[in-house]
Amino acid sequence: MPLEALRYDITPAGLHYLLIHFDIPAVDAATYHLSVGGRVRNPLSLTLAEINARPSTTLAVTLECAGNGRARLSPRPQSQPWLGEAVGTAEWTGTALGPILDEAAPEQEAIDAVFTGMDRGIQGGVDQLYERSLPLDVARREEVLLVYAINGEPLPPQHGFPLRLIVPGWYGMTQVKWLRSVTVTDHEFEGYQQAKAYHFRRVDGDAGDPVTRILPRALMVPPGVPDFMSRTRFLNPSVVTVEGRAWSGRGEIVKVEFSHDGGATWSAATLEPALSPHSWCRWTIRWDATASGEYELCARAADAAGNVQPLDQSWNLEGVQNNAVQRVRVVVAAGGDQTQLPADSL
Amino acid sequence: MPLEALRYDITPAGLHYLLIHFDIPAVDAATYHLSVGGRVRNPLSLTLAEINARPSTTLAVTLECAGNGRARLSPRPQSQPWLGEAVGTAEWTGTALGPILDEAAPEQEAIDAVFTGMDRGIQGGVDQLYERSLPLDVARREEVLLVYAINGEPLPPQHGFPLRLIVPGWYGMTQVKWLRSVTVTDHEFEGYQQAKAYHFRRVDGDAGDPVTRILPRALMVPPGVPDFMSRTRFLNPSVVTVEGRAWSGRGEIVKVEFSHDGGATWSAATLEPALSPHSWCRWTIRWDATASGEYELCARAADAAGNVQPLDQSWNLEGVQNNAVQRVRVVVAAGGDQTQLPADSL
Repeated sequence: MPLEALRYDITPAGLHYLLIHFDIPAVDAATYHLSVGGRVRNPLSLTLAEINARPSTTLAVTLECAGNGRARLSPRPQSQPWLGEAVGTAEWTGTALGPILDEAAPEQEAIDAVFTGMDRGIQGGVDQLYERSLPLDVARREEVLLVYAINGEPLPPQHGFPLRLIVPGWYGMTQVKWLRSVTVTDHEFEGYQQAKAYHFRRVDGDAGDPVTRILPRALMVPPGVPDFMSRTRFLNPSVVTVEGRAWSGRGEIVKVEFSHDGGATWSAATLEPALSPHSWCRWTIRWDATASGEYELCARAADAAGNVQPLDQSWNLEGVQNNAVQRVRVVVAAGGDQTQLPADSL
Repeated sequence: MPLEALRYDITPAGLHYLLIHFDIPAVDAATYHLSVGGRVRNPLSLTLAEINARPSTTLAVTLECAGNGRARLSPRPQSQPWLGEAVGTAEWTGTALGPILDEAAPEQEAIDAVFTGMDRGIQGGVDQLYERSLPLDVARREEVLLVYAINGEPLPPQHGFPLRLIVPGWYGMTQVKWLRSVTVTDHEFEGYQQAKAYHFRRVDGDAGDPVTRILPRALMVPPGVPDFMSRTRFLNPSVVTVEGRAWSGRGEIVKVEFSHDGGATWSAATLEPALSPHSWCRWTIRWDATASGEYELCARAADAAGNVQPLDQSWNLEGVQNNAVQRVRVVVAAGGDQTQLPADSL
């Protein structure tokens, strides 16, 4: 999602970030069904028509890739090189998962639900369908949905057609697309994407901490206009309103601060209400950029759980959860006179 | 556009390639108007309602970035590192430009039309709105449209809302988005994107040849499943139908050939009719992949004008027009037995 799209409450179709782990599978909606099985007393097989006939909910949810910010880490871990754009907010429509699990009636020993997608590939030497699990108590939360529409339209192929999981507040690896089954288990799931990938590890071989809920982040629409190659921003001397969005999966956003001097001094931005308890909120601040010069703009968010964005990277092997503050270099210079623009950025 | 999306006749919303040169501008449709001026006897200012009221045409058009394939060049020119995915086919709806130019009545000396977008940035030291020109006789061709809808929906911001130019057969740099004016001139346009960028030059300082119409290319849906990190494809021994698309802006596709041995031997694929004179056509071929081993699959297209895809790169400074044949490495190995998968690709 190009950062100027932070201007939209709801990310327009085609601008929401995507992480396609393997390939986008071709799915025939007519023969599709979702299996709900494993340690349940009443296994289910639900067609799309049956899922559509259930009570529906529409919820604005901000999703973010666990690897967002990876390309800012030094040294750079090898994987999708997101700078900071792996985010988006959509209105997802679907039906709550909890009542479906209730209907399937998990057995006493059941503790986890495994979500299996139809996307297949090889990772870490393992031929696999993409799958992730959740503890049953999380899977049953009322905001956890099986989703068939985005922004009022049927899911397009890349967002998980015909059915996907949405778990508000959790990083993107949780949001299993092209969902083919939910399997209730009496033990913790040991699949590759759950037990091996998506851990915060500083050293190879460490157990590490599993990636779960989204850490707070604020991002701004970069002011001014870009240089094509360097992406440095140029701005005419002026007083501008800097706007952005902030979100956290761990608590309401309670503060966003802005700095024009690389984090030496901070000012509080004005927060607007979030669209839903699971979406980003807009923030704005007036920046007096009347003096020519070079600036490093920063924004940082804090949530109600006490999490604050760090100024520096928290390096790890997979390059996950890098929510260090955004830094945007802006050159303020009188417009039209191109000789004032530094040669190295042109 | 992930290459598995070659399976769709019309690229679904959000899967069509995008090249956002500077930023996506925010446009207010209510106050929008298109200016048509310059060397004309009857300058026009058209609102969206006026443009929508004109006769409408819907046309399936394949668009491709001039830089598609750039990241396969060695050494790699610095710019958007497309491998081969910068393509897509949409049904564009708009109104023909020719009658609007006729209404504006170009003066006798008029030779060019300059198309100016609302997207602004700096490139090559020049602060500019994105603009490109066309000779008037090209701009007046019946298939050249001012477009306000894609696949039956209003243009989303990233595709040029509220109005863009579509010039079927020409590379993407021609398809000016967020169009604010058409200016008729009595001289060749010397703007940055016309006179400096988008030239095929082997040596700095050469005049070079301007990039214009799309060279032929065939791409296949890579068979099998990917390894996450290397993107090497793995396939169970089987007979498979390989499918893909082929297109050219210089003439109808008359032949697509397929090779499983890196281009040593070739077989003719079956061609299906194109969706329109300006869209790609589907091709298929049966590949006997029952013998385990490593294969390098290739496809190459030829058009009615006698253009054939080259086997090797045609290196140039900007990395444009690299239509060397696609090469897809596929490992055919018995499924399930992961020990047969080479360790270096896991």
